[in-house]
Amino acid sequence: MRISQLSAESGVPLPTVKFYLRTGLLPPGRRTSATQAVYDDTHVGRLRLVRALVEVGGLSLAAVQRIVAALDGVGLHDALGVATSALPPKVGDDVDVTAARALLDRLGWRVGEDSVPLRQLAVAVRAAHEAGLPLTDERLRVYGGAAAAVAATDIAGVPTTGVEDAVVYSVIGTVLYEPILLALRRLAHEDASGRRFPDATPPDPDGSAASTP
Amino acid sequence: MRISQLSAESGVPLPTVKFYLRTGLLPPGRRTSATQAVYDDTHVGRLRLVRALVEVGGLSLAAVQRIVAALDGVGLHDALGVATSALPPKVGDDVDVTAARALLDRLGWRVGEDSVPLRQLAVAVRAAHEAGLPLTDERLRVYGGAAAAVAATDIAGVPTTGVEDAVVYSVIGTVLYEPILLALRRLAHEDASGRRFPDATPPDPDGSAASTP
Repeated sequence: MRISQLSAESGVPLPTVKFYLRTGLLPPGRRTSATQAVYDDTHVGRLRLVRALVEVGGLSLAAVQRIVAALDGVGLHDALGVATSALPPKVGDDVDVTAARALLDRLGWRVGEDSVPLRQLAVAVRAAHEAGLPLTDERLRVYGGAAAAVAATDIAGVPTTGVEDAVVYSVIGTVLYEPILLALRRLAHEDASGRRFPDATPPDPDGSAASTP
Repeated sequence: MRISQLSAESGVPLPTVKFYLRTGLLPPGRRTSATQAVYDDTHVGRLRLVRALVEVGGLSLAAVQRIVAALDGVGLHDALGVATSALPPKVGDDVDVTAARALLDRLGWRVGEDSVPLRQLAVAVRAAHEAGLPLTDERLRVYGGAAAAVAATDIAGVPTTGVEDAVVYSVIGTVLYEPILLALRRLAHEDASGRRFPDATPPDPDGSAASTP
């Protein structure tokens, strides 16, 4: 296909396609003359990937370039890890993950030596501990079970039509489904709180306030 | 207790305690002389609440002031809603929640007319739809079940020793446990992906890449 069709097919504006070609994010097409080249479905897939990383993932072009370069010649599992590890939140390299890895061992989960979300977990668990609401065994079990149930559905849906399709799915599924999960948790809180405190008056010992109708 | 003891008991530095007194975030103590006042446990509880809202919740003093004012004379369920609704992410008032409410109806959840997380859900679901990965019935069931399981544990743990204790728990549990849940979901992805694609070569039809060892 011509570059104009490539733009139409991928939904990426023509000037953006040309920009991605210049910066090497999109590999060159096959030259048919001094001024023309043709493109194929691999270009459409790459464009969708770059767009998902930039527009959905909010990643810099430099980060996208590193991801695209890292996808060549790796297996699907590694490709998903490369892409999702670049997504926010950023976390330092020097985080002590000993305690976080012990938590995963209790869940029976296997993750890589330099897993980025393992460091994210270590930081988050420490913050909760310092705020006086440490992660208990019971809560680890419930939260871990919830995360595993969600992940089983998510990973079952990973398309196997190509590394780029899988990575697009994974980036969209991470960035856009995290807010869905959090909103559902807050709504579940609202529902559960309404059931536990159906007509709650303040338990303040002063007790002068009226209940809400 | 004296103001110095109040500072020590609550862990809030003395200059900050005085600042909260001046701005009305902390009610005045009982005057014992022209220059001295005494404080009690309600002041300790209030200080912990203000600190959780500012330091953990990242809220502005104006937002904290609105929350503290809104807590007077409401039930526990409403108090939790007032506080957690002020937490990020911000969401517009004019979001159409019709579709999001239909989702909750299918889950059997009851939430208020002007529920803030309902608007957050509406925005997040629309974004996923527009990115080509709409929330399916199956995924709603799995995500909703996971959120409900987590929320049941969370809400069972709400302390009933006072509205302020409950709100502190709720703010910390929202702000600091959301990153824990998200990190666990990403780790569960990594574990599930490793099981589904144990030695994955790229399914790219070019197929020239070697598998990772």
